[in-house]
Order: sequence, then structure tokens, then C-alpha cells
Amino acid sequence: MRPVEEYRTVVAALVPAARTVTVAPSEALGRALARDVAAPLSLPPFTNSAMDGYAVRAEDAVAGATLSVAEDIPAGRTTVPPLAPGTAHRIMTGAPVPDGADAIVPVENTDAGTTRVRIDLAPEPGRFFRHAGSDIAAGETALAAGEVAGPAAVGLAAALGITELEVLAPLRVLVLSTGSELVAPGEPLEPGQIYESNAPMLAAALTEAGAHAEVLRFVEDSAEVLLARLAERVAAGGIDLLVTTGGVSAGAYEVVKDAFTGRGLEFTKVAMQPGMPQGCGTVDLGGASVPVVAFPGNPVSALVSFEVFLRPALRAAMGLPADRPRRRARLTAPLDSVPGKRQFQRGLLIREPNGTDSVSVLGGPGSHYLRWLSKADCLLDIPPEVQHLAAGDPVDVIDLDH
Amino acid sequence: MRPVEEYRTVVAALVPAARTVTVAPSEALGRALARDVAAPLSLPPFTNSAMDGYAVRAEDAVAGATLSVAEDIPAGRTTVPPLAPGTAHRIMTGAPVPDGADAIVPVENTDAGTTRVRIDLAPEPGRFFRHAGSDIAAGETALAAGEVAGPAAVGLAAALGITELEVLAPLRVLVLSTGSELVAPGEPLEPGQIYESNAPMLAAALTEAGAHAEVLRFVEDSAEVLLARLAERVAAGGIDLLVTTGGVSAGAYEVVKDAFTGRGLEFTKVAMQPGMPQGCGTVDLGGASVPVVAFPGNPVSALVSFEVFLRPALRAAMGLPADRPRRRARLTAPLDSVPGKRQFQRGLLIREPNGTDSVSVLGGPGSHYLRWLSKADCLLDIPPEVQHLAAGDPVDVIDLDH
Repeated sequence: MRPVEEYRTVVAALVPAARTVTVAPSEALGRALARDVAAPLSLPPFTNSAMDGYAVRAEDAVAGATLSVAEDIPAGRTTVPPLAPGTAHRIMTGAPVPDGADAIVPVENTDAGTTRVRIDLAPEPGRFFRHAGSDIAAGETALAAGEVAGPAAVGLAAALGITELEVLAPLRVLVLSTGSELVAPGEPLEPGQIYESNAPMLAAALTEAGAHAEVLRFVEDSAEVLLARLAERVAAGGIDLLVTTGGVSAGAYEVVKDAFTGRGLEFTKVAMQPGMPQGCGTVDLGGASVPVVAFPGNPVSALVSFEVFLRPALRAAMGLPADRPRRRARLTAPLDSVPGKRQFQRGLLIREPNGTDSVSVLGGPGSHYLRWLSKADCLLDIPPEVQHLAAGDPVDVIDLDH
Repeated sequence: MRPVEEYRTVVAALVPAARTVTVAPSEALGRALARDVAAPLSLPPFTNSAMDGYAVRAEDAVAGATLSVAEDIPAGRTTVPPLAPGTAHRIMTGAPVPDGADAIVPVENTDAGTTRVRIDLAPEPGRFFRHAGSDIAAGETALAAGEVAGPAAVGLAAALGITELEVLAPLRVLVLSTGSELVAPGEPLEPGQIYESNAPMLAAALTEAGAHAEVLRFVEDSAEVLLARLAERVAAGGIDLLVTTGGVSAGAYEVVKDAFTGRGLEFTKVAMQPGMPQGCGTVDLGGASVPVVAFPGNPVSALVSFEVFLRPALRAAMGLPADRPRRRARLTAPLDSVPGKRQFQRGLLIREPNGTDSVSVLGGPGSHYLRWLSKADCLLDIPPEVQHLAAGDPVDVIDLDH
């Protein structure tokens, strides 16, 4: 059996780099920037006032002086006459400071006059000036390659008049769940059948990870039909990666194994629970070379496999933070683990402000407990050599909420 | 000046409860469930095998015994004959266990025969049975009101055959930025003008918070025109809340103040920096009563105001975790703060695995430094009574990355 870390690197090597696409700044939210963006202009573009008040010459604006108000400068005024000695311009926040002014008197420090103004408190020269280029100078790097654009980066790009940003695109993942026992929700269920849940679950996990998911479901359990349907879809374009669930273990009817064995996929056992049977490789489909990651069919195995192997690789390929945060937490109850396998048990964290979090295992090691998986907010990561842990023992947990 | 916490409760009281909408499980991702969902069926729906192997009677399957293989049961077989004494059914993972069988022999513990099978290791009765209802029994609560649907909840709903979930809908927020100095990105900039950035920035922040944002920009700076445009849009329906930026301070041309004073909006000063001038209230627009939150126009003030006042209230109204995580971190350099005002400075966290994070202030207290805001991953929350902190002093930070 292969160690988890070794198989992680095999899967990561299969995931292609994300394409670079050009989008409007608002569409860049949550995406990594593909290249540095130089500021096409300075911010502020012109020196402006940080206060509502009066632009003056400091030498004129002694306490008690009265100056005639020569101009009214609202924000947005595009032609601003220079300030003559002995006069003041009424000025609003954000409006351009006139040539000749070296101080701003806030309106609170005056009688607020509109034709003549009395200065009650002498201004400090240069105070309340937002100098042209003080936020950023034209030509400087405004946004750096690799940054993930948040709301402020979207705002900065807009403030710079930028209409297009190059970002790493979401990887486009085709999800195929296999199994002749699977029925679509909404259809009646015969004995022996179950509703298909892996494809919508993995599509949701892919969406949450920042990728784009497309689902191909209810393909007949025949290797030939499967390959034909996949080739057709891949030939139509727009697929970066194929993820399958089911059909990878040691049974007699393993359609994924049957379809892809000898075509570039390696099927292997990974020393973990859940998620031991795994497959991956590159397959020629519809004339294109497509990376394929094949997960086991149990829903808990499939989602844990996604968390452990594919999510970090996809995130890294899209330039997003790859790993979820890890914490140390104390077990609320004893725990047994299968020796030789790394266990990823589902858990619920009780977060404590002082940092000594505790964790309860939900639903035991069984790989079919979807209900408990849906209540879990973390995965306990129990090393292969551990067989038993006591209540109060510290364990590593992967925080699924972040 | 009003304390920050007091004004927070005023804004929170204005935000309406989110509507309940019915969506497909895949559309419920990231949304709070509006009501409990009872399982319409049991999971698994029927007792099935957890292994590829043979369904047997334990009394027949002693080590060394050879049994005739009466049936082959792949997953998805809907009619399964009962097991006759002295025989075995070959069974695949997920396939229904036949009546009469009380043990599963994994294929690894046999010669894997298809007509006759030799048992190498006697099975443990009941082991590798996934009993009907062991994950969830029909009628039990599968998903609880208030849970935020993650990928596993989407999977659980699908597994239960559920096609519709009731969730709290995104709040629909109309964003209006005002200012006659504002120009659309892509247009030429005259002296004294700046590119409009608040609306796309706040729309991104609203999207990131899980709300729905619509932008109304470049409305003429006239109270009459503004009210008419807003009334027209509100009358068309689908707006839960209006957010404005700009036009709320003490200047001579404050369009938001002019338009809404005497119409239900209260304008006030909050003891914080940035973000002192604020306004909020409920306004009659287009025949509807619309809650309005008016932020100052400086981009940093607007986004900090959103973080402090509106984001927690919106998230709570949508049933999502309201508050961002807070940490304690040590300052890397000394810091001065204006007495009497709660300061929210932009910072960069250096996270340490042992919990002693440190934080650097980015760009100083100025409210026009969009560049620094775009690099920040946290806000330092400095209480009003603090005037000076030394390098190494602990401060509260709001983690903007989560």
C-alpha cells in the first residue's frame, strides 16, 4: 500500500495549471492574479483636501484673520483657479487643492462664511493634504501576480480605471459517478437501488474549492459506453480534469477499472481509511490527453479522498491557498485506529478562545455514514502507527470550515 | 459621538430577515436551511454488503468448507433470491444482502470461485453488514434548520432522494455611490475627477459575504434626481436594502444627506476612525419602505464601515456565521491612536503555529489608502481609550481572510 503523502504528490502532478483569462475587476473576486499590474495613474490623481474647509496660504490664515472667499471648489470641479494672496477658496473633501494654497482650514475652525471667512484657529501647513500619488504613484505595482483579489483589490483596480485583469481561471472538472445501482433523485427507488449522491456532493465540493464542476451521471455500467460518452464530452472541449467515483475496487464489476486499465490509469491501494482503493493517470479521450482521478464509490470515501488528494492540488493549480488550516485538539473520548492506515475520521471541534480546542469523533470509521459527514466540521488525521488514543490525547485536525 | 457597539445594534435592527426560497440541493451550498428536513427514507435503504465477497450462513462457512455459488449479486440487482442452506451468493460492495445470510466472507478470504467457493477464513457473523437505516432511519431529522449546507449536506439530501430544500435567500442589496467627481473606469479622467471604486468594491464585499449586490452608479448629484432614480428601481421590486456611499459629512454638497434628511434617515457621528460620519434609517421609496445604510465616501472608510456595521448584520440575517474570527497579536512596531475614537487600522498578520501571532500596521490611519487596504488581511481593533501602544503590545485583530 502506498503512503498518503506519496499518492498526494502523484495526484498533484496530474492536475494541470489553470488557464489565464481576462476578466472585469468585479469578476476577479476570489481569483489569483496572473501577472503584476502597474498603476496606469497615480492615486490620488491630484492633490486634494481631506476635509471640508478652506484652502489658504498659511501666512494669511492667522487666528482672527478674515479672508475673502474667492472660489467655491466642490469635489469634481475640473478647473480650479489658483489662490491669490490674502484670499481663501472654500473647498470640499476630495476637491483639488488650488495652486498657491499650502494649508487647509477645516470648516469647524472657521465661521463657515461663504463670501468672507473668519479663521478661528491657524492651520498647520500641509495637514489635510492628500498628495497626488501618496496612495500609489503611476507605474508602481498596484496588484502583484499571485495575490488573490479581495474586495479592496477590486476597488483598487476600479480606482485606477482598470477595466480588465488577468486571473487564473477555475479548473473545469467533469465529475462522473458510476454504479448500476444509482437512481436520480425524484425517480422511484426499487429494492437494491440507491439515489446518486456522489456527483452533486463532489460538484459542491469543487465549487466550494473555487473550481468549475460539470456532472455526467447515469452512464451505463459498460466500459465501452463509458469511454464513448467521455470521449464525446471531452472532444467538445472545456474539460481540464476528469473525476470519477466508484468502480475502482476488487469486485467483479468495476467499470472504471475495466474502462481505464491499460489506457494510462494506475489503480492502487493507499494506506488510508476511508479511501483505500484509488486510481489516477492520463488517458487519451476524444483525441485529447485528459488527467483522470478515480475515487472509490462510498460517499464518505469519495469526499475524504477529494479533501486529502484533489482539493489541495486543485487550489494550488489555481493559485489559491492549498491547505486548510490544521489545529491540535484534545479527544473527548478514546479512539481506536487500524494499524498501518492513516485514518481520517469525521469530527466536531469545540473551539476554545484560549487555544485548547477539543474534538469529538462523529459516527465511527464506517465509510457510509453520510449523515455524520454532513455534521462534521473537521477531519481527525490519525497517523498510521497509532492504534489507540485516550480521552484527552492531542490529535491533528483539519478544519473544514475554513 | 455614538459608540461603535451602539450604532452596530441600530444598523442590525434595520436589516430585514432573509426570505425563504426553495432550491435544488446543489443550489443550497453555503446557505442556511430554513427548516428541519426529515429523512423520507432510510439510509442505507436496504441492508447491503460493505465488501466484495460472499453472503453465507456462518454455520456453513467454516474454514476449509466449499460452498456452491447459487447467485451472483452485483450492486443494483433489484431481485435477490434468498440464500439456501449450504450455498453462497457472490456479492459486491453495496449489493443487497440476501435473506438467510448472516455473514459476509470477503473475497480475500476465499479462492474467489464463481461456481463453487472455498472458504479460507470463517467469517464473523454480522461483520461487513451495512444495516438498513444504520446511517439514518426514515423520519429522523436529516438536516436541521439553521445548518449551513456544505458539500456533505448536499450529498446527504441527494442520497435521500430530496429534490428541493428551503434555504434563506441572499439579501438583495442595491449599492449607490454618489459624487460628481466620479467617472466610470474606461472613460478619460479630467483634472479633479477620480474613477468610481466604491460600488464595485462594496458589491464584491457583499458577494463575498453571501449577499446579492446590484449597482446603481453615476446618478447626478441632485437630491431630486437621486430620489427619483431610487424610487423607480425600488418600485421594480427585488431590493431588500439600500447602501449608499458619500454625501454624509459636513460639507456644502452632501447629496445623500440632502435627499434623505427629514425622510427617515438619521445622520450621526460614530466614535471611530475611519468611518465617523454615518447615516441610517428607513425611507419611503417608490411606495415601499426601504432600509438605508449610508456610508462615508472614502473607500477605506466605506469598506471598514461595511466590515464593522453591515457585514455582521447581513450574515446574521441570512443565518450565516456573523462575526469574523478575532485573534490577539503582538504589534511589530509602536502605534499611536486618536483618543476617544475606536480605530480600525489595516494590518498584516504573521501567523505563528504556537499561537503568538504578530501584526504590522499597513499605511497608517489615513482613510484614502486603498493600496494598503488591498494588501491587508486583518483590521486592528484599537479601543477608544488607547493613545499609544508599544512594539510587542498585544492587540485585537479581526481576521479578514476567514
